[in-house]
Amino acid sequence: MSIAEQMKQVATEARNASLVLATLSTAVKNQLLEKMASGLIAAADRLKQENEKDLAAGRDKGLSGAMLDRLALDDKRIESMAVGLREVAALPDPVGEVTGMWRRPNGLQVGRMRIPLGVIGIVYESRPNVTADAAGLCLKSGNAVVLRGGSEAIHSNTAIGEVLKQQLRAMSLPEAAVQVVTTTDRGAINELLKLEDDIDLIIPRGGEGLIRFVAQNSRIPVIKHYKGVCHIFVDASADYEMAEKIAVNAKVQRPGVCNAMETLLIHKDIAETFVPQIAEAFARNGVELRGCSITREFAPAVKEATDEDWDAEYLDLILAVRVVENLDEAVAHINRYGSLHTEAIVTESYQHAQQFVQRVNSSSVVVNASTRFADGSEYGLGAEIGISTTKLHSFGPMGLEDLTTRKFIVFGEGQIRT
Amino acid sequence: MSIAEQMKQVATEARNASLVLATLSTAVKNQLLEKMASGLIAAADRLKQENEKDLAAGRDKGLSGAMLDRLALDDKRIESMAVGLREVAALPDPVGEVTGMWRRPNGLQVGRMRIPLGVIGIVYESRPNVTADAAGLCLKSGNAVVLRGGSEAIHSNTAIGEVLKQQLRAMSLPEAAVQVVTTTDRGAINELLKLEDDIDLIIPRGGEGLIRFVAQNSRIPVIKHYKGVCHIFVDASADYEMAEKIAVNAKVQRPGVCNAMETLLIHKDIAETFVPQIAEAFARNGVELRGCSITREFAPAVKEATDEDWDAEYLDLILAVRVVENLDEAVAHINRYGSLHTEAIVTESYQHAQQFVQRVNSSSVVVNASTRFADGSEYGLGAEIGISTTKLHSFGPMGLEDLTTRKFIVFGEGQIRT
Repeated sequence: MSIAEQMKQVATEARNASLVLATLSTAVKNQLLEKMASGLIAAADRLKQENEKDLAAGRDKGLSGAMLDRLALDDKRIESMAVGLREVAALPDPVGEVTGMWRRPNGLQVGRMRIPLGVIGIVYESRPNVTADAAGLCLKSGNAVVLRGGSEAIHSNTAIGEVLKQQLRAMSLPEAAVQVVTTTDRGAINELLKLEDDIDLIIPRGGEGLIRFVAQNSRIPVIKHYKGVCHIFVDASADYEMAEKIAVNAKVQRPGVCNAMETLLIHKDIAETFVPQIAEAFARNGVELRGCSITREFAPAVKEATDEDWDAEYLDLILAVRVVENLDEAVAHINRYGSLHTEAIVTESYQHAQQFVQRVNSSSVVVNASTRFADGSEYGLGAEIGISTTKLHSFGPMGLEDLTTRKFIVFGEGQIRT
Repeated sequence: MSIAEQMKQVATEARNASLVLATLSTAVKNQLLEKMASGLIAAADRLKQENEKDLAAGRDKGLSGAMLDRLALDDKRIESMAVGLREVAALPDPVGEVTGMWRRPNGLQVGRMRIPLGVIGIVYESRPNVTADAAGLCLKSGNAVVLRGGSEAIHSNTAIGEVLKQQLRAMSLPEAAVQVVTTTDRGAINELLKLEDDIDLIIPRGGEGLIRFVAQNSRIPVIKHYKGVCHIFVDASADYEMAEKIAVNAKVQRPGVCNAMETLLIHKDIAETFVPQIAEAFARNGVELRGCSITREFAPAVKEATDEDWDAEYLDLILAVRVVENLDEAVAHINRYGSLHTEAIVTESYQHAQQFVQRVNSSSVVVNASTRFADGSEYGLGAEIGISTTKLHSFGPMGLEDLTTRKFIVFGEGQIRT
């Protein structure tokens, strides 16, 4: 079979399996996830053996230490995949929820009910745990899943997929509900991305290159985010101590992630006092600042920011700092340079808090807390399948509910249209 | 300027305008729509003059009578655009609605607030009323809109657009909030569909050819539906009189629309009595039936159905009829041949009604009522911007709410992540 035929078969089988999955009770889905969790633990030795093949190939190919670390499976990571599946089993099932129902003048009752999307394709890079994590979320929400991981993790992903399929078979469920694409041919992704009749959604997880490739080549809807250039605006009325604590946390606690702060905006009325204070706080935390001219007036040791700094996602202990005239200028800066990810204001002004929330249309808008909370589990969505900074379907961290859609349900008593 | 540069400018201006629109109060938006309605009525003579240019060109090009009728603007149609804008003004504003808010263990309050999508592109064919109707829905939901109608309606669309822009200017609002693409160069659509950074959603309205072209060439998310192959399943326990009334209504009341029934499925236990009854009813209504072998056993005058009939969207007084073993076979038929538009069951069985609603995942699933109700205004959504038979973002008839997305809003008291 050609790659195109192979992918078409994978997708058709997934579509057929999805019809069965959509009708499973919550109890059956939870039992399946529990069995998958136990299955992974029981298969730990085999998983580590298969993973060793990937690691050996990676070492031969000269992968970096960081890449090899991402690829590696040990008992702790296998345990953690199992825990993840059990956590998803414990989450409420979104399928079947009726989000509203109303009566029309002619007596028809009209409502909207959550249903699975159908078939979800996940295209990801080196971490093999994504195979189990993504499968768990897709299955719990009643979806079939096609998993296409990186070729460097092919043995690990295939072995994890085998364990998951075993449990589907054991429960007499269609094993095509979880499919790991085992060909490492790069053309396979291209073929998958054409199958709009059988795959309902593609979620790419990985670097910006992968995400752009998928977005540009897919006929299937893609949910994605490229980067997080998150801002904090310290308003004139801010509590300095709170502002410092939040700003330092947002930059320093884990600088390499998408919800870390990349640009700090400071109201000009407090620049003279707050700029030196925050510059000192960041210096203590090893953060390099790049500031506008007013920032540098009050903190002369700060480097000069260039235009590129306002666009930068450093993912590092570097921060751009700009003094702004007022709330309007802060919002305008965010509209111009932001990435629609997460922006926060620190303020004691009720009016400014309200205005910031109304006027900033990023996927997360935060008052008086760290941007680092922008995350599915911190928001209480349970596990996270990804984050979206495009507005269609989902915007922000995505949980189980985002893997569903809503159909209209209509109950009548013989009504006809006149 | 090249076409590409022109379209880029249109989209950039729309993006800038959308930032203003997103912050308008409901009162201002309603006032704008009221003024636009009055403006159209006041400009009726000019609109008819410009429309006459399109009609003359259409006659020269040899457009059919039906095409010319679609294109024509008279006082009644201009009045009807105005009424449409006033109706949209009267609808509740979805923007700003907080659809839920909850408190996390650390005290953070997390909620989701509806916001406009941003910039919406509408690509449509000959009816000039779409210009006003679509603009009204986009503006009320706080979005800027780029309208690209058919070249045969260019004078009419441009004139309507001018009236709408006049009212934006009169209220000191950015006139780029409504833009009619005035170039008739076909390449303009191609260029628009590339501008994923400035346009958030494309809605194509027109024939299947246009919709497929847009879907295949767009980098921007597209909400669409190709066709409606709607089914009614008459269960063994159905009330015959109700079943006949519903089936006839669903086929005959307006056969040329997407929510008309195209295939009737009948439970085998009632075939002997119900098939002759319904065949007679359809004969009285001038409907040609194409049936399976069992149907023809009980209604010998019925033509034989071929495989193509199960896929057909007749949009005409023709109906495919099939006798099925049971509910399972009815659902299997719908899964195989349906278009995810609208399916109905006629039954007196509680269990079968429940099962049909659970197991059929079309965008509308109806019990004991005509499929013809699958429509935004019949469902109480107010005016309809379109209908989606793809599951992402919206599924089924789309109203104002579907032109919004939800951002997360987070209220803290200085929380940081540890």
